[in-house]
Amino acid sequence: MRKPTIRDVAERAKVSLKTVSRVINNEPSVMQATRARVLHAVAELDYEPDPSARNLRSATAFVIGVAYDNPNPYYIISVQNGVLSACRETGFDLQIHPCDASSPLLVDELCDWMRRSRLAGLVLAPPMSERMELVEALASRGVKLVRIIAAAEDPEDGYPCVFVDDRDAAYEVTEHLVQLGHQRIGFLWGGQEHRSSSERYLGYEKALKDYGITLDKHLVVPGDYTFDDGFRGARRLLALREPPTAIFGSNDEIAAGVLAAAKSVGMNVPYDLSIAGFEDSPFSKQSWPPLTTAKQATEDIARHAARLLIAQLRHDAPEAPAAVHNHGFVPQLVVRGSTAPMRPRPPPAQDA
Amino acid sequence: MRKPTIRDVAERAKVSLKTVSRVINNEPSVMQATRARVLHAVAELDYEPDPSARNLRSATAFVIGVAYDNPNPYYIISVQNGVLSACRETGFDLQIHPCDASSPLLVDELCDWMRRSRLAGLVLAPPMSERMELVEALASRGVKLVRIIAAAEDPEDGYPCVFVDDRDAAYEVTEHLVQLGHQRIGFLWGGQEHRSSSERYLGYEKALKDYGITLDKHLVVPGDYTFDDGFRGARRLLALREPPTAIFGSNDEIAAGVLAAAKSVGMNVPYDLSIAGFEDSPFSKQSWPPLTTAKQATEDIARHAARLLIAQLRHDAPEAPAAVHNHGFVPQLVVRGSTAPMRPRPPPAQDA
Repeated sequence: MRKPTIRDVAERAKVSLKTVSRVINNEPSVMQATRARVLHAVAELDYEPDPSARNLRSATAFVIGVAYDNPNPYYIISVQNGVLSACRETGFDLQIHPCDASSPLLVDELCDWMRRSRLAGLVLAPPMSERMELVEALASRGVKLVRIIAAAEDPEDGYPCVFVDDRDAAYEVTEHLVQLGHQRIGFLWGGQEHRSSSERYLGYEKALKDYGITLDKHLVVPGDYTFDDGFRGARRLLALREPPTAIFGSNDEIAAGVLAAAKSVGMNVPYDLSIAGFEDSPFSKQSWPPLTTAKQATEDIARHAARLLIAQLRHDAPEAPAAVHNHGFVPQLVVRGSTAPMRPRPPPAQDA
Repeated sequence: MRKPTIRDVAERAKVSLKTVSRVINNEPSVMQATRARVLHAVAELDYEPDPSARNLRSATAFVIGVAYDNPNPYYIISVQNGVLSACRETGFDLQIHPCDASSPLLVDELCDWMRRSRLAGLVLAPPMSERMELVEALASRGVKLVRIIAAAEDPEDGYPCVFVDDRDAAYEVTEHLVQLGHQRIGFLWGGQEHRSSSERYLGYEKALKDYGITLDKHLVVPGDYTFDDGFRGARRLLALREPPTAIFGSNDEIAAGVLAAAKSVGMNVPYDLSIAGFEDSPFSKQSWPPLTTAKQATEDIARHAARLLIAQLRHDAPEAPAAVHNHGFVPQLVVRGSTAPMRPRPPPAQDA
């Protein structure tokens, strides 16, 4: 038996093709009696609209969402572009949802958004992705999601993720500075709600320890992943009685702030101060000197996360667990002009 | 008579609430006979799902899209955030669609995207928004859209838009340089497919003319809205026998490239060279020295465009023209440390 067409529905319901289409697409402006006739005909014929038109059957089941809370446009655009490239491979579309990670209503907000837009699944970026109570609450409401998180290894907690080993990469950055002869190396934190921030700190700490350098707490400054906090943090470090000879900003925005702070006090980078960042944002190549950093393949990471999500969605027989494989990335050290061998300084004034 | 509920449908069709919900939401995995029974019951009762669930009736009529082709993440994030803030005011959601403005299949691509995701309307960013044949083709296929364009005045061409008077703002930037004593002022173009680029050039040209300065064609360099083209263009200008004493990069990315080029040849900005940009990207405050530029309120511009679109969509009785008011913005000169009074130079070697 041939499959029924929209024409069959129109004939049986004695209405125009346009009217059938209106009913199928849930447009208003169809009379109640007409709508009932069309729905009866659809039911009797078991008509399913052409998948290429994707109307009644799938509606917007081919849209996924990405939720983020991050002040860095380069990071966000890279995440979006990575997810979009996986979408293009598979015929999905993308909705974006910047949000406030600290909102107490976040779970409701995300669920409302996904329901009203009928999203099939969610890519969750840090820091939301790193809050287990949020992930569990979303999962318990039936949300299919994949997380992008900072972690040295696969958490194997039952929720799919792509994990980025910031700790290992931060170790490498710090080791590079140590090998250039630096002993007093400042560290500027990013936002503590981001696990990447503590992971990067742990890498810094471990490298110092492995090279026998005592960590000086005065050289470690809290802050956020912003230029302004980099500027402020660096000014504070450079005003110390015994300032650092190198500063590791835990992302490139921070490092750019350090660079501006160094210039603002007349220092010549890298000769008076070495500076390293993290992430390899485009502008890390565009500053003068360009920044030594750790190249984080954000677009690839996001693409992989979206592929994981889409594989999970496609595999979905009702209730059947999807065959999902987590994947890890390690950012790579990139050495540019902002780091150089330490030059000896005049000995500092002695503390009592 | 009270409105029928999903419970009434379930009772009449003798199925569970969950099954009704599955049919309404077009989920697969419902048996054919069951599906027919539910659709009959929906038709007989003229049941319409609760608007708060927004399932059958409205589906995704509350989603708009934004399409862009622009290499500048700060610009794109500002456009997205502006559109999103109008969406939040009105309960809409947003799909994004970066695309290749030069693709010959662009109209089909955009229409396919809008149809499969059932988008209610489109905010079109430059350069696509400035190609009339594209706008007309989309409109002729029934796409509701609002354009963001560069124009000195409202084009009044029947298609709603927000227009940005780049010409006037570029005039002001150039005037600022002239008033600092500069006579040889270089100009670096952005991509010629962007009307903003020619508008900015026209403002530069007019300011020189009004101040009686002869335009030297050697000081005008074609390029794209990128750091790299700014760097290359500046190196070319600075290698001239009689180089400029100021360079106007037609966006901040270009100006950042000029700054790097100046530093790469050992120049001290602003004393050896004044540099101005355009757009007031966040990093224009973060370079050293920070950039003189024209503040373009991209987020406000995009918010207004989205409000125009949503007003049009809400007003839409079938075929009735919407009451839409176009709106213009003028970027404002912001003077920072990258521009300074001209210092006299040794006279150049004379040409024959």
